[in-house]
Amino acid sequence: MESWLPTLETETPEQGYDLAIKLARMAVKKTQPDDNVRAVLRDHYATDANGLVAASHVVATHFATVAAANGYWRDRAGEETGR
Amino acid sequence: MESWLPTLETETPEQGYDLAIKLARMAVKKTQPDDNVRAVLRDHYATDANGLVAASHVVATHFATVAAANGYWRDRAGEETGR
Amino acid sequence: MESWLPTLETETPEQGYDLAIKLARMAVKKTQPDDNVRAVLRDHYATDANGLVAASHVVATHFATVAAANGYWRDRAGEETGR
Amino acid sequence: MESWLPTLETETPEQGYDLAIKLARMAVKKTQPDDNVRAVLRDHYATDANGLVAASHVVATHFATVAAANGYWRDRAGEETGR
Amino acid sequence: MESWLPTLETETPEQGYDLAIKLARMAVKKTQPDDNVRAVLRDHYATDANGLVAASHVVATHFATVAAANGYWRDRAGEETGR
Amino acid sequence: MESWLPTLETETPEQGYDLAIKLARMAVKKTQPDDNVRAVLRDHYATDANGLVAASHVVATHFATVAAANGYWRDRAGEETGR
Repeated sequence: MESWLPTLETETPEQGYDLAIKLARMAVKKTQPDDNVRAVLRDHYATDANGLVAASHVVATHFATVAAANGYWRDRAGEETGR
Repeated sequence: MESWLPTLETETPEQGYDLAIKLARMAVKKTQPDDNVRAVLRDHYATDANGLVAASHVVATHFATVAAANGYWRDRAGEETGR
Repeated sequence: MESWLPTLETETPEQGYDLAIKLARMAVKKTQPDDNVRAVLRDHYATDANGLVAASHVVATHFATVAAANGYWRDRAGEETGR
Repeated sequence: MESWLPTLETETPEQGYDLAIKLARMAVKKTQPDDNVRAVLRDHYATDANGLVAASHVVATHFATVAAANGYWRDRAGEETGR
Repeated sequence: MESWLPTLETETPEQGYDLAIKLARMAVKKTQPDDNVRAVLRDHYATDANGLVAASHVVATHFATVAAANGYWRDRAGEETGR
Repeated sequence: MESWLPTLETETPEQGYDLAIKLARMAVKKTQPDDNVRAVLRDHYATDANGLVAASHVVATHFATVAAANGYWRDRAGEETGR
């Protein structure tokens, strides 16, 4: 079986952000494995201001980890900005 | 398509702060892609004391990441303060 | 007696994520040792959108620690991506 | 126009703490630019125990960033304690 | 008088986790020194799903500090896994 | 006027913990300078389980900063444990 998380390294910051979202959602999935229940709950916090902000905070915490794992993508940034 | 997040590097701390706000909002957008729903919800937490503080916390978490990615803009600060 | 936490090192990021979940749950267990009470409470937050997001945040905080402890599994990633 | 955040460096830890407060408030201001609305909301959380603690948490997160940016003001501390 | 916190170093990750719990509880004790009041409140959050998760988050934040203070117990792990 | 925060360095981990509490409370004081209002609010969260846990989380965040600023008091620990 292929791992859902083979590495924390991504090519770009944007992909790193998407990985952070994946990491945030996986904990929800592992606590509530039922797809239907999760769909209902996601509708709930997707239309709840506080719920969305709380979900965004989880992404922020994971993004910090992914960004550190990738050395903040500094080499790539250097290529583009010429620093 | 151009990336919404090509790099974590910014010229100034202020631009880094704005990027942190962008990072905080993007997770909300990806969870709730409907612009109209999001506009309603944003009106909600923009007039809710707890919601504003919670949103500010997400920005703080992202700002920590962006600041680290930029080496805390120390070189630039050095230029200006003469340290 | 064998330790439930002999090391923070894991072979893969995915195992590190599972360890983060274990770390998050252990604090709950140590505060509420009664298995039956915990089962009821877990049913509660597993069907509560805000509770699931809050639980996911705890996992995110522990995952940051586990990832740092493993050097972000960079060597392993190198093997696979050829970087 | 002068930047509201030219640098993260401060002379003293106390000034760094004040900067952390400024950073926490700026996100609120950028989400709710209306001064009057913000004044009302601030009255609200300034008299709400949970709101005050939540606001203090945002300051703590920013203070961590500012302190790291300043190398924890170790040199200055050295001057004073003779370490 | 002996210090309740003579050092952040522990022999094992498990002891580090227990220290994180101690650190989380001490702030509660210092804010609410009355043992009886605290016992009532602890009964409250020990049977409240959200309270347990929130308490677990505090432990996670302290565990990050304790783990860093111990260099993630890497040397010890090395002894056991032969890495 | 003497600074309330001349340095982040403390002699012991325990003093560092007390400094973290001071840092957590100072943000509350700066947001709500009225001593009487603050006394009422403190009574509130000191008898509120969730409030106490939230306050403990702020202390945890500041303690991470203070501990890092002190190099986790490793030298001192070395003296005592003979490591």
